[in-house]
Amino acid sequence: MSPVDTISLVNGREDRVDPADRGLAYGDGLFETMAAVDGVIGWLDYHLERLELGCRRLAIRPPDAATLRAEITEHCPPRGRCVVKLIVTRGAGARGYGPPADIEPTRILSISSWPSYPAENYSRGIRLRTLELALGENAALAGLKHLNRLEQVLAQMELRHTDAHEGLLRTTSGHVVGGTMSNVFVVRGTELATPRLARAGVAGVMRRVVLEQAGAVGLVATERDLTIADCRAADELFVTNSLLGIWPVARFDSRELAIGVHTASLMRDLGYGAAA
Amino acid sequence: MSPVDTISLVNGREDRVDPADRGLAYGDGLFETMAAVDGVIGWLDYHLERLELGCRRLAIRPPDAATLRAEITEHCPPRGRCVVKLIVTRGAGARGYGPPADIEPTRILSISSWPSYPAENYSRGIRLRTLELALGENAALAGLKHLNRLEQVLAQMELRHTDAHEGLLRTTSGHVVGGTMSNVFVVRGTELATPRLARAGVAGVMRRVVLEQAGAVGLVATERDLTIADCRAADELFVTNSLLGIWPVARFDSRELAIGVHTASLMRDLGYGAAA
Repeated sequence: MSPVDTISLVNGREDRVDPADRGLAYGDGLFETMAAVDGVIGWLDYHLERLELGCRRLAIRPPDAATLRAEITEHCPPRGRCVVKLIVTRGAGARGYGPPADIEPTRILSISSWPSYPAENYSRGIRLRTLELALGENAALAGLKHLNRLEQVLAQMELRHTDAHEGLLRTTSGHVVGGTMSNVFVVRGTELATPRLARAGVAGVMRRVVLEQAGAVGLVATERDLTIADCRAADELFVTNSLLGIWPVARFDSRELAIGVHTASLMRDLGYGAAA
Repeated sequence: MSPVDTISLVNGREDRVDPADRGLAYGDGLFETMAAVDGVIGWLDYHLERLELGCRRLAIRPPDAATLRAEITEHCPPRGRCVVKLIVTRGAGARGYGPPADIEPTRILSISSWPSYPAENYSRGIRLRTLELALGENAALAGLKHLNRLEQVLAQMELRHTDAHEGLLRTTSGHVVGGTMSNVFVVRGTELATPRLARAGVAGVMRRVVLEQAGAVGLVATERDLTIADCRAADELFVTNSLLGIWPVARFDSRELAIGVHTASLMRDLGYGAAA
């Protein structure tokens, strides 16, 4: 596929979206952004599991997993890398926040070209900067990859006025959440800590993979409340998402960090460009 | 128009929505819900003013106001009541939270049948109930009628398990915001207070109209932080939005309230069914 091509299927057909879809009206839905290599989606089971869990929490009828798998398999290019994005909304319905009882979920599968991440982000690490924007806290939505993403849009707009690659976000009560489009991990001694997502944030699939992999590189994984001070005191810092994998942090605000051995081991074990 | 008809125009054409629209992907946009009577929109200037202000705050290029007015005039039925909803999104663009530089906003105009509000909601008042769900606080989004409305969807779902007509929402730090789909007003003595919207909530057009009208009925209007205790201590309570106008509150949680003279005067002056 050419770099600008995106194909989209709405409920399995090449189509556009009903203007009355609640995904558009209210952000009433969820999404998954997945990395495909030669027709195979990385951690597809985890993505589909999170999607189903999200549907349950929002009381959206989950689309049939077999249908989703078949559709992805049919349309994912058999060669090369691409991004496979799946949106599931509550469906199209009448006006008003309260969902109608008999509503069919909408699924939108989009396949687009692979983003070109600079090799230095892996080999030399990135600059991470604390942003001013504070995220609202909502336990009912925390952890979900839902479609209400205006805060992340505003965060990216703030980030563009800096020289950093990624921005670190806190909630209104000062708890670290993660990056604008990534989860954040703090290594200190043998602890690998990442913010627990009780108030805000997205429970990333790569976050789950890294937590599961921690033991293999000699780290004890924990999910807990983290402050900016915890991030400043880190021996190693890195960010993750399903597309980029793992980026080590080489500068956090004004502090320089070396790419640590644990980060490098995780990157190597999970197949993301070896640190320099 | 028949009760189930909805017509929608995407950028002036009878069309569907691009699956890559950022309104769908991220809720990256705004909307206005307006009451039309015999082809005339109530407080159209206020709606268009709020929309433009919202676009500025989100750095969305505002659509041309003359185009919006012409489109509404052309498609709004000349007889009867209907709901005119206008969505403006940042537009369709590539994947990723950061908006592309050269992006054309999308406008979606939908015209649908008038909701049938029970006459007793005006004549006898409604039941208002404090909900458990706490809204996240975000100063950057507070006041805007943006498309990130999952909290309101969840609030409506909670409300359905009660016998109340509307639910009262607080933020995570305990400040009263308003109803799930309305603003709330508290009359005590000669003060008419409504929550200031510094942390959350929507600056409703009917809220603005009522604040402007307060003096004419002998009330001093204020926007300030309000607690549940302030609502409990009210002489009169009512909720507002552009479609329903004003509904007096006859029961707040377990407390019964009479429909007060100030509420009745505001309803009469603004043309919403006289209280019984």
